[in-house]
Amino acid sequence: MTERIVLAYSGGLDTSVAIGWIAEETGAEVIACAVDVGQGGEDLDTIAARAKACGAVEVSVVDAKDEFAEQFCMPAMQANALYMDRYPIVSALSRPLIVKHLVAAARQHGASTVAHGCTGKGNDQVRFEVGVGALAPDLKVIAPVRDFAWTREKAIEYAEKRSLPIDVTRKSPFSVDQNVWGRAVETGFLEDLWNAPTKDVYDYTEDPTQWKAPDEVIVTFDRGLPVAIDGDAVTPLQAIQLLNKRAGAHGVGRIDMVEDRLVGIKSREVYEAPGAMTLITAHHELENVTVERDLARFKRQVGQRWTELVYDGLWFSPLKYALDAFLAESQQHVSGDIRLELHGGNAVVNGRRSEKSLYDFNLATYDEGDSFDQSLAKGFVELWGLPSKIAAKRDQSDS
Amino acid sequence: MTERIVLAYSGGLDTSVAIGWIAEETGAEVIACAVDVGQGGEDLDTIAARAKACGAVEVSVVDAKDEFAEQFCMPAMQANALYMDRYPIVSALSRPLIVKHLVAAARQHGASTVAHGCTGKGNDQVRFEVGVGALAPDLKVIAPVRDFAWTREKAIEYAEKRSLPIDVTRKSPFSVDQNVWGRAVETGFLEDLWNAPTKDVYDYTEDPTQWKAPDEVIVTFDRGLPVAIDGDAVTPLQAIQLLNKRAGAHGVGRIDMVEDRLVGIKSREVYEAPGAMTLITAHHELENVTVERDLARFKRQVGQRWTELVYDGLWFSPLKYALDAFLAESQQHVSGDIRLELHGGNAVVNGRRSEKSLYDFNLATYDEGDSFDQSLAKGFVELWGLPSKIAAKRDQSDS
Amino acid sequence: MTERIVLAYSGGLDTSVAIGWIAEETGAEVIACAVDVGQGGEDLDTIAARAKACGAVEVSVVDAKDEFAEQFCMPAMQANALYMDRYPIVSALSRPLIVKHLVAAARQHGASTVAHGCTGKGNDQVRFEVGVGALAPDLKVIAPVRDFAWTREKAIEYAEKRSLPIDVTRKSPFSVDQNVWGRAVETGFLEDLWNAPTKDVYDYTEDPTQWKAPDEVIVTFDRGLPVAIDGDAVTPLQAIQLLNKRAGAHGVGRIDMVEDRLVGIKSREVYEAPGAMTLITAHHELENVTVERDLARFKRQVGQRWTELVYDGLWFSPLKYALDAFLAESQQHVSGDIRLELHGGNAVVNGRRSEKSLYDFNLATYDEGDSFDQSLAKGFVELWGLPSKIAAKRDQSDS
Amino acid sequence: MTERIVLAYSGGLDTSVAIGWIAEETGAEVIACAVDVGQGGEDLDTIAARAKACGAVEVSVVDAKDEFAEQFCMPAMQANALYMDRYPIVSALSRPLIVKHLVAAARQHGASTVAHGCTGKGNDQVRFEVGVGALAPDLKVIAPVRDFAWTREKAIEYAEKRSLPIDVTRKSPFSVDQNVWGRAVETGFLEDLWNAPTKDVYDYTEDPTQWKAPDEVIVTFDRGLPVAIDGDAVTPLQAIQLLNKRAGAHGVGRIDMVEDRLVGIKSREVYEAPGAMTLITAHHELENVTVERDLARFKRQVGQRWTELVYDGLWFSPLKYALDAFLAESQQHVSGDIRLELHGGNAVVNGRRSEKSLYDFNLATYDEGDSFDQSLAKGFVELWGLPSKIAAKRDQSDS
Repeated sequence: MTERIVLAYSGGLDTSVAIGWIAEETGAEVIACAVDVGQGGEDLDTIAARAKACGAVEVSVVDAKDEFAEQFCMPAMQANALYMDRYPIVSALSRPLIVKHLVAAARQHGASTVAHGCTGKGNDQVRFEVGVGALAPDLKVIAPVRDFAWTREKAIEYAEKRSLPIDVTRKSPFSVDQNVWGRAVETGFLEDLWNAPTKDVYDYTEDPTQWKAPDEVIVTFDRGLPVAIDGDAVTPLQAIQLLNKRAGAHGVGRIDMVEDRLVGIKSREVYEAPGAMTLITAHHELENVTVERDLARFKRQVGQRWTELVYDGLWFSPLKYALDAFLAESQQHVSGDIRLELHGGNAVVNGRRSEKSLYDFNLATYDEGDSFDQSLAKGFVELWGLPSKIAAKRDQSDS
Repeated sequence: MTERIVLAYSGGLDTSVAIGWIAEETGAEVIACAVDVGQGGEDLDTIAARAKACGAVEVSVVDAKDEFAEQFCMPAMQANALYMDRYPIVSALSRPLIVKHLVAAARQHGASTVAHGCTGKGNDQVRFEVGVGALAPDLKVIAPVRDFAWTREKAIEYAEKRSLPIDVTRKSPFSVDQNVWGRAVETGFLEDLWNAPTKDVYDYTEDPTQWKAPDEVIVTFDRGLPVAIDGDAVTPLQAIQLLNKRAGAHGVGRIDMVEDRLVGIKSREVYEAPGAMTLITAHHELENVTVERDLARFKRQVGQRWTELVYDGLWFSPLKYALDAFLAESQQHVSGDIRLELHGGNAVVNGRRSEKSLYDFNLATYDEGDSFDQSLAKGFVELWGLPSKIAAKRDQSDS
Repeated sequence: MTERIVLAYSGGLDTSVAIGWIAEETGAEVIACAVDVGQGGEDLDTIAARAKACGAVEVSVVDAKDEFAEQFCMPAMQANALYMDRYPIVSALSRPLIVKHLVAAARQHGASTVAHGCTGKGNDQVRFEVGVGALAPDLKVIAPVRDFAWTREKAIEYAEKRSLPIDVTRKSPFSVDQNVWGRAVETGFLEDLWNAPTKDVYDYTEDPTQWKAPDEVIVTFDRGLPVAIDGDAVTPLQAIQLLNKRAGAHGVGRIDMVEDRLVGIKSREVYEAPGAMTLITAHHELENVTVERDLARFKRQVGQRWTELVYDGLWFSPLKYALDAFLAESQQHVSGDIRLELHGGNAVVNGRRSEKSLYDFNLATYDEGDSFDQSLAKGFVELWGLPSKIAAKRDQSDS
Repeated sequence: MTERIVLAYSGGLDTSVAIGWIAEETGAEVIACAVDVGQGGEDLDTIAARAKACGAVEVSVVDAKDEFAEQFCMPAMQANALYMDRYPIVSALSRPLIVKHLVAAARQHGASTVAHGCTGKGNDQVRFEVGVGALAPDLKVIAPVRDFAWTREKAIEYAEKRSLPIDVTRKSPFSVDQNVWGRAVETGFLEDLWNAPTKDVYDYTEDPTQWKAPDEVIVTFDRGLPVAIDGDAVTPLQAIQLLNKRAGAHGVGRIDMVEDRLVGIKSREVYEAPGAMTLITAHHELENVTVERDLARFKRQVGQRWTELVYDGLWFSPLKYALDAFLAESQQHVSGDIRLELHGGNAVVNGRRSEKSLYDFNLATYDEGDSFDQSLAKGFVELWGLPSKIAAKRDQSDS
């Protein structure tokens, strides 16, 4: 039987060309697998048709938008996942989902190999290959762009020679990856760290320096999940999409940073994630109200490690699963309403209410009704400081 | 010899009244100690005169603004210190400095006891008492407001009866603490978490929803310290003051949050810290450019623990000193320029340059000149994912 | 209705005297609650009779040995819980179990208050009171020994005056607490840190310097629980009891250390925990074989935090529950056999086998059959070291 | 000018053969560099003569025993460095020292390249190559055994054909690496995890199951360094050597474990480190007496990370240097005497005394002289448990 290879297919130049090229080089049949994670652009039918035209023997197209929002974006929000305290791991989240569908397609179509179009200096190659290894350790992985030093020029030449139905003239000045959780832009003149991003870098957000009347929004959470916006029930996907629009209109969620890649180099990245940043901001503040202090303090470390793992391609890994269990337990009381004002690039929380609140007005207030017994404080303070006091006595007796 | 007590003196109602009250209750002589940490308001001479008028036998006034900026605010900036990821520990930083001067005054004036005006449900009592215990374990501490349930009403009555030179009619709707690093506001209608802050809550910042032309500023750092702004040399104090003004004009650094106090309760706090937030933002991004990845990842945990310790009153403690040593070592290459745009409540970095940069254009670029050997990636990815791949094989053989 | 108070009752002098004393001081009815956690000594009937004779209106005796082993000791073993890397939290584990039964008794008998006999300088008062607060925040707690400065001398006088059925002449030179997980000894001449423990300190273990033929034991685990010893099925309780005997005969599990108490002081403690230390040793090595590296590394931190929480009296706390979820997830493949040699105070693992092993002979061997592709290593090593190499280049260009 | 290559030379078969082989393959001149880290065996003159006979144009021999003990073993002891809580990173410590001397030799002799004899599946290749990259990023590294799949058989054939002065008949059943800090043994029948080590595995330690009268030893530390043994002044090297002998006679420091290698696989390792384990045990207990609680708790995490970094080949790395600064600060009061009993494979601390002790007899004692104010405890306990109590109230109101 002819060997079969499942290719992660985007519809773009590189992966369109790869269909024929892989087939020629390996003699295998190529199955194109396209996954919709809310990246927008062409519809899946158009993409499927192009894959066929480029030589795919089978095409597998998957609308995974809800799955992506529920199974990938929501856990990230619950972890308040910001790599290096800033980047909401937009691309890092979609890769394991795509891997899952690639593996499913490989099983369905009897393929022995999976192929992806990543280069050798980015994080995505790691996420694809480590993900495949963790879901299907028997499958082989090939990476033509990386392993055969395939370039844009070669790809264009290949496409033209074979008259493939791809517009090779469209060339973005940047490299872009996008999905419903956000949009990542790199390369081009952004590679000079001193250059500020220009307006054309952005697509999900409008210019926050253009004045607009502030927009107030109330997000309702139930056990760590957004369930309503301004009182209207939403699915996770709808919550993200709606906030992408409303927060995006105010320029919320633009990020410009230098980032540590897993492969050991630093790179300049620009992101837009209006919905993601608004949801994380709201969720985090609701945790401030409903999550106990020691749990909140340790959860920061868990969230940081979770985020590093996902960034580093280890979504499907034993440590990730154990951290998931911790995070799930932490969310059971994260219910309530958060009111935010969207304006000038900011999503600012200015109100919170929750039946699960740990804020106790009577303990906190300085007004009448104060139920806090201040006489307890003296003993607490004394024993809290005792270790450093004993150390101070010792240190002072040092000559 | 008559016993002497050094009182942390602010010039306000509570501590003015405390001078005479402590003297009467204890028979001791009271020395008022006022420390200028950039809180603004009345000048030190006025405050000193009032202390005398209220019965202080000695008054110790200290201009500690530069010391505060250099020895307290700068380490906090180097730690990127944000309690609960948000609060730049404004009050928590000033307390140990005040403690240091209280203890010095006690030594100078032969006092056996230190007094402070904190209540029993806040963090500051801990910072004062644990700080004194760690610097001078032999000194006693008294806290009349807490230990004798002193109230505002009693204080006013006491002041009026003795005609103390204090305006008892001025009553802020909030409780406020401020210094050059920021301003903290609490109580009043903010105790209802659903109430948004009103305009009168703010003083260091202007309304970010009022449009203003963006302001661009370049901050130059040398080994983790700001040394110039827009090319003009500045001291740390000047850097903070200048950015308080410029960033404050754009509403940068407003924070509205629910916070976990050390004494075990949650409270609503509003902060303004335009200079602090701008400096931390700039410093953090310069670290992204100049600090190696593993160091940066671990430094997050160190910074978080450092921040918790300082928040929790343990500035003078063995663990704090050891974390200081870590942080000092981490700053030696944090030198360079950061360009920010101030607008609409945001301080956004849009340029960075440094002779100590670890960003290597030739390794990062996708253009010509790329020096990254992509063939190395295959082996890296394979071994990076090997543990989870082996685990996956094991798991799949589970029936 | 007369108020009722449930007293944690041990049968010893202090708590026997407390029955009558509490009744007299408060006018309440006292219910004695005795919980068997495998401490040995008198049987529960004898203890119950004494409580009655001392004035208890009701006596609640609970055989909680299996519950203690299963619900408390097993999670500790799974966390490899050693406070300060040494102490298997013997007393700290039993307190929350006792609290649980105290609260149940209070509910059953309609009591409003719980009482314990702890002093004010130890950890156990914290464990009792914080535990009660977390299970039944409405219950009051009283601690007569601490809050009324009750002393041994007063207790003896009280007992003699009322002819209570307690032998007041038996006075151990030490303070001892024991249960099936181990035995804790403190005070007396051990308070001088330079004094070595004498033979009479120990009871669970024989002198390891007396020669005996080594004893080999095989412990079988299933998903993190010991299920057989030398092939014979055991419950968790039986596993601990059997190993207490066999490992105790070889002096395994003696611990002599200086420890940091939660209340801020250091104390000298001597422990014996032959079964606990043998099980933890075996379990830890089985984890080395069956738990993936990243999970194992992070689990150390989780285990340390879990142990600190339990030591610090926070068994019933939100963070503890979330760490439990992590730990439970980590144990699902911890199955297999561990062979140990017991001798001279040591339990030494010298064999391990598991169907869930992640050890891959073919990858590890240097003999024939090696399936490790060494060519992958070059790229891995190069990218692994790239960040420090780039930093080194930067540092060397410093003048 | 002819290129020159510095080879890490052990005197054994592989590296002896490599001298000529590298010269032939590359046309370069080979300089053999042998570093004495206390591995015992042949003296450096004999090794130098063999290198010459095998074709080295220069031989660099370095007695680095004191440097190794002071600059590498002592920091490890101060970190209480036990990888996976057990392995005192014996080989991992010597590699960076050897790298340092290789680089020095390369600079002295004008070499462009460094060579080592490690395979591609162990940790040492990483330590060599990452170390060289971090000290001399301009130097190239070659690894003939790994990169050219050199085998023992080929090496013997090569040696015999050229009559190199090496005894090719001596073949250990194990692979061994040793230095003054310990001895590592792997491969052979140990690759079956169920096989117990046999007597011939060990060389630094005698059989702990053979009875011998216990040996008592007092180690004196000054600021984290051993300075005297039984009252006689020692250097760090002498302390290790003396305890290797005395603790080794009682079988102390045998370790048999399954270990997670950096390259992603698990391996079985047997170690002997009598001096190292005795020093770490003594040092750790002296820290228990002299280091404040919060510092001690965080230092565990720092020590764990430090150990992982060193194990993972990152001795020369920015994070390692920052952790060093933390550790150095932590040691300033670690002074005093520790008394241990050596017997039956154990080094057991049974006495400690220190002028820097934080143990306060008057606070700890239950006898007369108790200065602990127990009335402080009530308030402490109440506020300590307040967050979980508030959470409990919230949880109970859940329906």
